[in-house]
Amino acid sequence: MIRLFVPQDLAAGAELSLDEGHSRYLAAVMRAKPGDELRVFNGRQGEWRALVAQVGKRAVALQVIDPARPQEPGPDLDLIVALVKRAALETIVEKAAELGARRVRPVLTERTNADHTRVDRLQAIATEASEQTGRLDVPQVLEPVKLEKLVAEWERGRRLLFCDEAGGAKPALEALKGAIGPWAILIGPEGGFSPREREMLRGLPYATAATLGPRILRADTAAISALTLWQAAAGDWRT
Amino acid sequence: MIRLFVPQDLAAGAELSLDEGHSRYLAAVMRAKPGDELRVFNGRQGEWRALVAQVGKRAVALQVIDPARPQEPGPDLDLIVALVKRAALETIVEKAAELGARRVRPVLTERTNADHTRVDRLQAIATEASEQTGRLDVPQVLEPVKLEKLVAEWERGRRLLFCDEAGGAKPALEALKGAIGPWAILIGPEGGFSPREREMLRGLPYATAATLGPRILRADTAAISALTLWQAAAGDWRT
Repeated sequence: MIRLFVPQDLAAGAELSLDEGHSRYLAAVMRAKPGDELRVFNGRQGEWRALVAQVGKRAVALQVIDPARPQEPGPDLDLIVALVKRAALETIVEKAAELGARRVRPVLTERTNADHTRVDRLQAIATEASEQTGRLDVPQVLEPVKLEKLVAEWERGRRLLFCDEAGGAKPALEALKGAIGPWAILIGPEGGFSPREREMLRGLPYATAATLGPRILRADTAAISALTLWQAAAGDWRT
Repeated sequence: MIRLFVPQDLAAGAELSLDEGHSRYLAAVMRAKPGDELRVFNGRQGEWRALVAQVGKRAVALQVIDPARPQEPGPDLDLIVALVKRAALETIVEKAAELGARRVRPVLTERTNADHTRVDRLQAIATEASEQTGRLDVPQVLEPVKLEKLVAEWERGRRLLFCDEAGGAKPALEALKGAIGPWAILIGPEGGFSPREREMLRGLPYATAATLGPRILRADTAAISALTLWQAAAGDWRT
């Protein structure tokens, strides 16, 4: 079943003009015809059944029929990830959408090589992955921020799982036992955090250091593993 | 630190002629010089320090110095994965190596499109990932097999975690509580198992059905998540 994320308000009978990307996808890739059924969601009003009303090459219109699933808030989980290489960062954003993160925030650390990224491109990847994975919202991809600034502006009450491969930390699943409330997961660059950064992170009262096993993981693997463990221990993968 | 997987026996003073791939990598990519230190492992005798002895463009020789880490058996975990598209399958093999699987076996199911794969190429990916992740062995990539044959020849005593998105199964972390001994994880094709296959799998006395949360996961995400949860609950990610 095709699912599209749209910006418009959704209500029975509403007509939706799709943007060029979605229109091309439906017309050229899926060869949609008037009367075809699909689903739309906007992150605010749940998922609705809709029918294709008009098909032009660059302009497809839908008619909203009736609600299919009510909006539900997902787990309050941020993924904060060092600006790694483009391919790895794109994979991480895609997987963060599949694994139910609410926001993705790239972070600049001492051992981060890159200093910028195409946030609009990452947001498009997050949107497409959200359409495919069946969720009712799209994770927000935020502008990159320096680690110091991130910490200085930390949101009160949010816990931080800080993946520390330098030894001495608890296994992540143990560190997450009994976790409740809003959390963030922090994944460092391939070269790891600097000693100064590690010391700073370990001193934060809201941070918990954790390890992801005895092998060296690439940043994308570490991000997927940490999101998985959080969802299984504290998120919506529980019964 | 460069780590190379070699087929030869390792002992203090042994001279190793590297294959063309490793030789080119050291000579052309890493610009190795005689006297440079690296590590070698063969999956049987632990990891050893070695020095570059001779450098030719296509033939580099090493001299083994002394042992650095003793061989240890990893967890006894197989990953069985439906033959998905090449890029996803290659990702899965790479991640299986990082996440400590002992063997990877592609499986043909009713909804699998492909019917063959380059096992030698997948084995090379597993080897390179093992070199980078720091493990002391390399997962063996086996020839694809049909699901019926896999089940007919099942190894006595090995449990199976069968990721079933069709509903009614326990969360994977709960299904793995108290797990011990040899296990396998089975990841189905993107289109899921057929009803007949699901019924067959659910009837196996050694199989446990499990879900990976409420969202639809791509095969590579599902494989990484399931390997992660097994390692955290039953493998070497515990304290």
